[in-house]
Amino acid sequence: MNKHVMRITIIGSGNVATHLAAVFKNAGHRIAQVYSRNLHNALLLAYHVGAEAIDKPEDISPEADIFFLAIKDDAIPAFVPLLSSYNKLIVHTSGAVGLNAIIKVTTNAGVFYPLQTFSKTKEVNFREVPLCIEGADEAITQTLEGLARDISNKVYRINSEKRKVLHLAAVFACNFTNHLYAIGEQLLTGSGMNFDMLRPLIAETADKIKEHSPAGVQTGPAVRNDELTMQSHLQMLNDKPDLQEIYTRLSQDIIKNQNTRNGDK
Amino acid sequence: MNKHVMRITIIGSGNVATHLAAVFKNAGHRIAQVYSRNLHNALLLAYHVGAEAIDKPEDISPEADIFFLAIKDDAIPAFVPLLSSYNKLIVHTSGAVGLNAIIKVTTNAGVFYPLQTFSKTKEVNFREVPLCIEGADEAITQTLEGLARDISNKVYRINSEKRKVLHLAAVFACNFTNHLYAIGEQLLTGSGMNFDMLRPLIAETADKIKEHSPAGVQTGPAVRNDELTMQSHLQMLNDKPDLQEIYTRLSQDIIKNQNTRNGDK
Repeated sequence: MNKHVMRITIIGSGNVATHLAAVFKNAGHRIAQVYSRNLHNALLLAYHVGAEAIDKPEDISPEADIFFLAIKDDAIPAFVPLLSSYNKLIVHTSGAVGLNAIIKVTTNAGVFYPLQTFSKTKEVNFREVPLCIEGADEAITQTLEGLARDISNKVYRINSEKRKVLHLAAVFACNFTNHLYAIGEQLLTGSGMNFDMLRPLIAETADKIKEHSPAGVQTGPAVRNDELTMQSHLQMLNDKPDLQEIYTRLSQDIIKNQNTRNGDK
Repeated sequence: MNKHVMRITIIGSGNVATHLAAVFKNAGHRIAQVYSRNLHNALLLAYHVGAEAIDKPEDISPEADIFFLAIKDDAIPAFVPLLSSYNKLIVHTSGAVGLNAIIKVTTNAGVFYPLQTFSKTKEVNFREVPLCIEGADEAITQTLEGLARDISNKVYRINSEKRKVLHLAAVFACNFTNHLYAIGEQLLTGSGMNFDMLRPLIAETADKIKEHSPAGVQTGPAVRNDELTMQSHLQMLNDKPDLQEIYTRLSQDIIKNQNTRNGDK
């Protein structure tokens, strides 16, 4: 294998930083440093990937090929000027932040956005994680693409505008979905039942759309326009006005979509 | 095996009727008749399970031990009086309909509610499907429990009131969740991207709660109270007021739940 080994410094020690550091290391790259404001967190991650742990921005070494900013969105702008004088590639990993957050300081700029939800304690098959790549020029894009292909089979070139749409779609399909699970749990435990009863249904609902378009497999009272059941559900939620509102809004949107599919006006 | 073989007649030919007929047959029971208003549908299902297909209510034979009403909720009340003179057990399979829909005609009454979403074309591991059982008396409950254990490892005694809560929770965790997937698809295709990009995230989101409480693994801008990102998302939805409303309602509820978890007022 004559692959070019990259020296990667990871800024951050959260879920994305942890998973990226591990998969880059496993793919044969070198993790140079791990920075975190919290030295304990930096040490934990650095230990696992054979890197140096640091907790002061001034200790970040120029001896790296790429700096990965895997930190909170609002911390990105402050970090770019600290690194730009090294003249190395700087990439962030955020769905919601544009490439211009880096470009306005240096054109050695890129984005490397993994479209997945990570927990530190749960393994993810990274080869199935969609990686959305954007570079300030074609050479950078190709460098990032090469790096992305080392760790995933699903590499996409996505510009900042589309990446923001992806991030928004992910909020609906992941964050909001998880909250609906939480509402289900809340309703069950409120009546003395265990959330375990809902788990097989949740698994099957997600499994179904692996091979179908979700709009095509919509089920439930709203898509049938079963007003009696919907009214009875709203009545059960009489002491939970927030859930009533969510129920109404989502049901109306399902009915509207269904009418559009049926060609109504 | 000295198991008592039951003669089961299935009223209905939809998804629930199809799956129940198949698993009862596989468990060694006999499907006597399959009724559907649509003879073609009755024939299709009856052929697969070695039963007689009928499309006229007057052709329903008394030669059965149990009648399963796997039909639409509002069709249940009309069918019970047609069968009650046979003095056999009549059960419906609905989450939203009370046991009293049958009891007011005959006390030979029960409910057999599978808490799962079924498609005719997709296999389901029925041993993992929660079956919610209710009988008009202890003997009926035990009969239904025995039958349920023949086909599933997850058998629960659930009264009509709790079953309605389960059904409502399932609307949130399954029907509404699927609609959030559909919104994700709509946003992606509207920007020229493919829904495939979201599929791994959806799978992981569902996978995560197999071993966690959903409220404990909530992620996204709302739970972080990241107002800048939420405002930017709402702005992107400026031409989609319905999605703005859904976004706002769900975000507010996530924030409220988070505050409750943190012990705020």
